[in-house]
Amino acid sequence: MYEMHFGVPMSGAVLNNINTRLDARTVSVLLKHAGSKLVFVDPALLQLLRDALRLLPPGHPAPRVILVEDPHEEEFPSAADPSMLTYERLLEEKGDPEFDWIRPRSEWDPMILNYTSGTTSAPKGVVHCHRGLFLVTVDSLIDWAVPPQPTYLWTLPMFHANGWSFPWGMAVVGGTNVCMTRVTAATVYAAIARHGVTHLCGAPVVLNMLANASDAARKPLPAGKKVRILTAGAPPPAAVLQRAEAIGFEVSHGYGLTETAGLVVSCAWKGAWNRLPATDRARLKARQGVRTAGMAAIDVVDGETGRSVPRDGSTMGEIVLRGGCVMLGYLNDDEATRAAVRDNGWFYTGDVGVMHPDGYIEIRDRSKDVIISGGENISSVEVESVLYGHPAVNEAAVVARPDEFWGETPCAFVSLKQDAAGTVTPADVIAWSRDRMPRYMVPKTVVFRAELPKTSTGKIQKYVLRNLAKEMGSTRKGASSSSSKM
Amino acid sequence: MYEMHFGVPMSGAVLNNINTRLDARTVSVLLKHAGSKLVFVDPALLQLLRDALRLLPPGHPAPRVILVEDPHEEEFPSAADPSMLTYERLLEEKGDPEFDWIRPRSEWDPMILNYTSGTTSAPKGVVHCHRGLFLVTVDSLIDWAVPPQPTYLWTLPMFHANGWSFPWGMAVVGGTNVCMTRVTAATVYAAIARHGVTHLCGAPVVLNMLANASDAARKPLPAGKKVRILTAGAPPPAAVLQRAEAIGFEVSHGYGLTETAGLVVSCAWKGAWNRLPATDRARLKARQGVRTAGMAAIDVVDGETGRSVPRDGSTMGEIVLRGGCVMLGYLNDDEATRAAVRDNGWFYTGDVGVMHPDGYIEIRDRSKDVIISGGENISSVEVESVLYGHPAVNEAAVVARPDEFWGETPCAFVSLKQDAAGTVTPADVIAWSRDRMPRYMVPKTVVFRAELPKTSTGKIQKYVLRNLAKEMGSTRKGASSSSSKM
Repeated sequence: MYEMHFGVPMSGAVLNNINTRLDARTVSVLLKHAGSKLVFVDPALLQLLRDALRLLPPGHPAPRVILVEDPHEEEFPSAADPSMLTYERLLEEKGDPEFDWIRPRSEWDPMILNYTSGTTSAPKGVVHCHRGLFLVTVDSLIDWAVPPQPTYLWTLPMFHANGWSFPWGMAVVGGTNVCMTRVTAATVYAAIARHGVTHLCGAPVVLNMLANASDAARKPLPAGKKVRILTAGAPPPAAVLQRAEAIGFEVSHGYGLTETAGLVVSCAWKGAWNRLPATDRARLKARQGVRTAGMAAIDVVDGETGRSVPRDGSTMGEIVLRGGCVMLGYLNDDEATRAAVRDNGWFYTGDVGVMHPDGYIEIRDRSKDVIISGGENISSVEVESVLYGHPAVNEAAVVARPDEFWGETPCAFVSLKQDAAGTVTPADVIAWSRDRMPRYMVPKTVVFRAELPKTSTGKIQKYVLRNLAKEMGSTRKGASSSSSKM
Repeated sequence: MYEMHFGVPMSGAVLNNINTRLDARTVSVLLKHAGSKLVFVDPALLQLLRDALRLLPPGHPAPRVILVEDPHEEEFPSAADPSMLTYERLLEEKGDPEFDWIRPRSEWDPMILNYTSGTTSAPKGVVHCHRGLFLVTVDSLIDWAVPPQPTYLWTLPMFHANGWSFPWGMAVVGGTNVCMTRVTAATVYAAIARHGVTHLCGAPVVLNMLANASDAARKPLPAGKKVRILTAGAPPPAAVLQRAEAIGFEVSHGYGLTETAGLVVSCAWKGAWNRLPATDRARLKARQGVRTAGMAAIDVVDGETGRSVPRDGSTMGEIVLRGGCVMLGYLNDDEATRAAVRDNGWFYTGDVGVMHPDGYIEIRDRSKDVIISGGENISSVEVESVLYGHPAVNEAAVVARPDEFWGETPCAFVSLKQDAAGTVTPADVIAWSRDRMPRYMVPKTVVFRAELPKTSTGKIQKYVLRNLAKEMGSTRKGASSSSSKM
């Protein structure tokens, strides 16, 4: 997949990475929508691909399949049909060392197609051009201050918005790429120690995994060398940031979307903040931040009037972005493109946030995740960030549960740390919350689960939890309820 | 001048920094050629500007003059005519804090005008657009791996190709700018110690000045902190690089021209090279290097056929560059623009170099500085780099001297280190050179001078020396001559 990030665009084609954890039906939908002509596939996924191809509508031209054999893959050493064209054979038989790469006619020519994960709607095909990808690549290198020749660990899947541009970024700075098949706390700590990893990226769930790792899984970080983590993809709870830094990771926090090709908002850190207590530092670092140098503008606007919200850190509005990293549009979906990119190039993110007096934005929620209780907007992220502070809590997700009186009330799904099971009850968590947040924000329902449902990119699937909450039926006015081990 | 780099383009105007060491006649020529409408001037230069304005042709509209008073300037505390408009009064009386900056209609709109120093021809006005300056700015930050919030010392004049883009670069990374009126070894060492300087730029003459500083002028570099120097503007002699690194500076080396807005070729350093002896390291670091990420291509071509020279490290050709940092063109000089930017966007630098087998280029000379002796091309830079290795030599410049038989022979102008005067003769230097270079390259003439003539940007003025060499008359076949203290 790393080589594809270079070879495919340099051959004049558009690269579409497919999430390796999708099912055959979805893969089939994407292949059809993208009009894919050529598919490179790992032996471990060959059966899935064959199933997907069978699901293509009759008459749809089937893409050519090329098998990328993997000498490091133990489970599927000889899964290949010997008659199939393999990547290595293709290079050997048809590769031309003198091939002069095909430059785009225009820097605005498409180069990448990425499908959004589509938790609520059909996947949308985000198209980026050479220019936008160049911009986000150099922008991210500067923003994270990546030095020459780093050692980069691929904890972030490369199919996730092109690994936030770092396949190209690592090439610019001559980095070493360390790839892994399975990302667990033990494999990550082992890879860091073995390869002298200096940089890695990951959603807050990865941070959380590393911070809450058992002693057996954990290896000490290389002495005298900083291990830098760039986190994004979801608002990181301050408590998780604090724990990761206590272990010795140097965490940077940014924000971006598939539609911006990578991170375009950054929690630019001020030296003076280092003198603050750890909890204040973590609270400041949990803010998404300011625009990067590659973007023209960022704002938080009222969804109805389109006007900037006050810079008060409390008035919620939609986060909007403008600049060179914004996508060309959604493939074959002009309507969705027009809805997302409006008013002379402003991209409407669908994320709800606030603007602080110092110009830093902070995400409060995805629009659809906001809980509206008795007319009050409750940020599920804010409630979760308090729950993460509870010593027994491993992960927490808060969604709306229907309520006869209030309309909706906050319902928290919580997984506990390994050694905490049985030591705490849902009622304890509710009581603990009451001491730490306004009454209307306190979860009326707390549900313990062994694990929270997640997307392939490690995001908690709130729509699954929202359905569970709906199935639980309405809470009654004023009542709190809780259940365990659903 | 730092503020002008932002305020002028943001008001929709084009910024032209004028070299502060030019004479009134040249300033007058530039003001006329540029059609300047507004001139901001320092009190120390007010008289010079008035002289220049008087030299404008009759009827030429005089630009408006605004005095930038300098509270730190001791010599000219009250030079201002009280009736003159000052910068501070302009801001106070006409400044609008609500002013929304004027964005360019197109990123290709001109933003900067820089006049080349014009050692041989009339100054040419190099025009760069917003896009090119953005590219070179982010490119230089990545290439030099500038971290957030560095402390940058302005040893490089800001009027010299906009300080190689670092006025904007320092703003991107939130740097602290330390400015100085007078750049000497003592003031630079003092500023580094006082402000904890982490980064500075300078031509090799600055490196040489720091490396050869007396003990009285030198202060130890801050303990535990690296001081990084980026050098460019002339090929740095390996001996000077070696001495600077021995003191503790971490030197990076790049290459660019006014026409590329900053450095676009970089001696990208390989880890394996750190295991080489210091002399080999310095020799490798003296090569200009490979293109930066912001450029599309670099090559060394035969001046007549336009074909790439072999990658053998010895065949000389003209260095050519293509990519986003190349200028829009020369102001009002289409002929010069067409001569410089040809063949679909290739910029012909006028620098003569070689391509090494590993793809690194090394400059051998400016075209006009090459010495042609008996049909052999001699790189003055190569001869100089040997002379710099002589323990008594402070600076060296080699030019062509007419010769009855050979056509030209190398003539070296040399300044000695302070404590070396009287310990060495020109004949010693010639004998020393004979042991270290091919016979045809050995200077037939060595002239000692207290100081070598320099441009305002610290480059040695070879045309002055070339004229001196011409005035000395032809050398006779086979004879060596030398003179001292001309």
